Amino acid sequence: MTTPSPTHKATLQAPTGTRDFYPADLARRRFIESAWRAASVRHGFDEIDGPTFEHLDLYTIKSGDGIVSELFSFSRSGGEKPYALRPEFTPTLARLFAARAPQLPRPTKWFWQSTCFRAERPQRGRLREFLQWNCDILGSEDRAAADAEIIAVCVDLLSALGLTPADVTVKINDRAAVAQALAQAGLTGDPTPGLVLLDKRAKLPEPEFARHAAALGLDLARFDGLMAHAADQCRAALAGHTIDNPAFASLSALAANLRQMGLSAWCAVDPSIVRGLAYYTGMVFEVIADGERAVAGGGRYDNLVELFGGPPTSAVGFGMGDVVLSLLLTEKKLMPDDRAIARALGLAPHAFVLPNGSPEAESALVATVAALRRAGLHTRRSYKTTRNVGKLLKEAADSGAHFAVILESDQEATVKDLSTNTQWPARVPLASLPTQLKPPASA
Amino acid sequence: MTTPSPTHKATLQAPTGTRDFYPADLARRRFIESAWRAASVRHGFDEIDGPTFEHLDLYTIKSGDGIVSELFSFSRSGGEKPYALRPEFTPTLARLFAARAPQLPRPTKWFWQSTCFRAERPQRGRLREFLQWNCDILGSEDRAAADAEIIAVCVDLLSALGLTPADVTVKINDRAAVAQALAQAGLTGDPTPGLVLLDKRAKLPEPEFARHAAALGLDLARFDGLMAHAADQCRAALAGHTIDNPAFASLSALAANLRQMGLSAWCAVDPSIVRGLAYYTGMVFEVIADGERAVAGGGRYDNLVELFGGPPTSAVGFGMGDVVLSLLLTEKKLMPDDRAIARALGLAPHAFVLPNGSPEAESALVATVAALRRAGLHTRRSYKTTRNVGKLLKEAADSGAHFAVILESDQEATVKDLSTNTQWPARVPLASLPTQLKPPASA
Repeated sequence: MTTPSPTHKATLQAPTGTRDFYPADLARRRFIESAWRAASVRHGFDEIDGPTFEHLDLYTIKSGDGIVSELFSFSRSGGEKPYALRPEFTPTLARLFAARAPQLPRPTKWFWQSTCFRAERPQRGRLREFLQWNCDILGSEDRAAADAEIIAVCVDLLSALGLTPADVTVKINDRAAVAQALAQAGLTGDPTPGLVLLDKRAKLPEPEFARHAAALGLDLARFDGLMAHAADQCRAALAGHTIDNPAFASLSALAANLRQMGLSAWCAVDPSIVRGLAYYTGMVFEVIADGERAVAGGGRYDNLVELFGGPPTSAVGFGMGDVVLSLLLTEKKLMPDDRAIARALGLAPHAFVLPNGSPEAESALVATVAALRRAGLHTRRSYKTTRNVGKLLKEAADSGAHFAVILESDQEATVKDLSTNTQWPARVPLASLPTQLKPPASA
Repeated sequence: MTTPSPTHKATLQAPTGTRDFYPADLARRRFIESAWRAASVRHGFDEIDGPTFEHLDLYTIKSGDGIVSELFSFSRSGGEKPYALRPEFTPTLARLFAARAPQLPRPTKWFWQSTCFRAERPQRGRLREFLQWNCDILGSEDRAAADAEIIAVCVDLLSALGLTPADVTVKINDRAAVAQALAQAGLTGDPTPGLVLLDKRAKLPEPEFARHAAALGLDLARFDGLMAHAADQCRAALAGHTIDNPAFASLSALAANLRQMGLSAWCAVDPSIVRGLAYYTGMVFEVIADGERAVAGGGRYDNLVELFGGPPTSAVGFGMGDVVLSLLLTEKKLMPDDRAIARALGLAPHAFVLPNGSPEAESALVATVAALRRAGLHTRRSYKTTRNVGKLLKEAADSGAHFAVILESDQEATVKDLSTNTQWPARVPLASLPTQLKPPASA
């Protein structure tokens, strides 16, 4: 066996850009994961999962060879093709849907939550391993309804965590509407160069952007005017007005659906939202916190399932990571403290058992704890050697337990309800403790 | 964009040895994970997690360079040391404990459940990516009590899933006892060669085994006699007899603890259990189903935390994978059906909303579903275009929903309790549906 040496120092830390989760860290992560899961289930999504690594090709089919440098890839000898850790789940989702498309319901509503990996140089807020939540609706012919349902589950999660429209805005756009406005403003042929340019708009100096737009034959004032008109119409639809002959029908239909769902206050059309990824085909959206940080993003991708060998399939979805969301909750003081998280996750002990200091009580400790656990009760005990009952009761209270069970002998115990700080009037025979300390109704 | 071609066929399947989880598959996996988590929490373990990949060195420190060929390893340019997907969690656990040993409680009780990876050639029952559950107790000076607690949480999981001592046996041994017997039977010096030989005993022809034993100077009859005596003593301790001057004190103390916990029927001492991994230092055990398949295994590893730069630390733990356990539950008809799993996991819909076929009812569908979900109720709806209420009610029943909500207009609904197949006597105004369809008590 090797002895640890100074050269092992780096080995004995988590790789840069990954995280260790001690119990309190993991409880905060599980709190977010549990909120993600609950929102998904409430909205009728079914959970799926796939391999942590896929054939490298699966990612280049969707994103081109440019993605390879962002992937952790590896090979095995013996003629196996190279693999890569998943940088996102959508290719796996498209693969799963394509493989069983004829048997799957219409629509298919799937959610997924697990880890993704990016091989970029680690920097602040950018991890190499992070958690991601996805919801997707595939095969729905009513695109505006499916788009609205995707936005609804995302907003419901934010709302369930205590965020409000004062904290976050769902900024919505539609690539089809943008393409239509680009064409009306003079761009001929494939709208892609126009979309690519618009995606860079916020980062380019205005004169440079205008020069590029002119080179594409684009009348910028006309384009901006058309999009402003579309946004106005959507604002009116979100406010409950009926739009006759909407200039951009799909955006207006989406706005009408969002209004029916009671989501008007959360949503705004923003013509500047384009989203770089090339595969979006219609609605795109980002959830923006405090005017700048993207908490979630997604959109419609009607060509992807076909690209993976399936039938032409309507598809819309979004992804949300844990890092920005956690920062936001912490800043807004919406991340509960450790004790509240333990309660929310059902992790608070039901009983905490301690002996009163006598050898008889001591001798009953192991069997009593085992019997309570066998009855399904989350039971902790003191492992301290002290016989100071006051100290042990403090340990019980610190554990967040509902009941302290003080063994008075090898026959009976005193029960103290720590949630009300009251002691039961009569001692309880040890044999009837499991029935008397009934599990909570939810167990 | 690339068009799928015959060469993409392999790409469009999960890599060999990994799994796709469609909703029913994932629900079965979540059922097992949820049982693992519940048993861990009941027994007072706190959950931790670490990176999916670690520095490759972390695994060679524990297991030597021989493990490298079994790992999925990969490198990045720019002077970063190589990484490997975790083949097991114990090195990460030891790293986490060593890094914060002074601040951590004594004992520290941790559990972990997630995926592990092995780069071996895939074969039946051996996957390249699989789920693993670990429980570990670190820093307990009462080794027999900690060993018994580790066995207890493992047995509690098996019992909670419906397995009994007729299905599985916890076969226990103690490397310290084996080393003592080896020494008494003539082996001088380091006991390792004797342990290595014993680990191969079941696979070697008896004459060959005897030859190797003789070469080590071992009196095999004497060794077997000593171990049989130890097993007899433990059997007596498990049956409640007090053993004076036990020949193998640690095994007898463990047996006494197991008896106090009510676990005697599950456990047997088996001198043939050695477990190949070199790092065990005391108690070792395997849970054996139907006399042959190992469902779980573990033991005491008092040197490992020190090897990772921490203080000398008592440590004991075990691991259980999902593959053998799932097969066993299925064979024993203990894997619930899809509907029962959905109920157990809280995935059954609370309400299923369908319009009665009228345009007014149709127009209220989106808003009603959104309002129920906002109230926290798991709500599904029909997306079918049929107006045949009978067909839609069948869809509601097939979903496993508790209530069918039949929209009668844009003002009211009929509620049908599908769990009792009774209809509520009066129609319900849509606005009061969220309060009248109260969430279950556990929500």
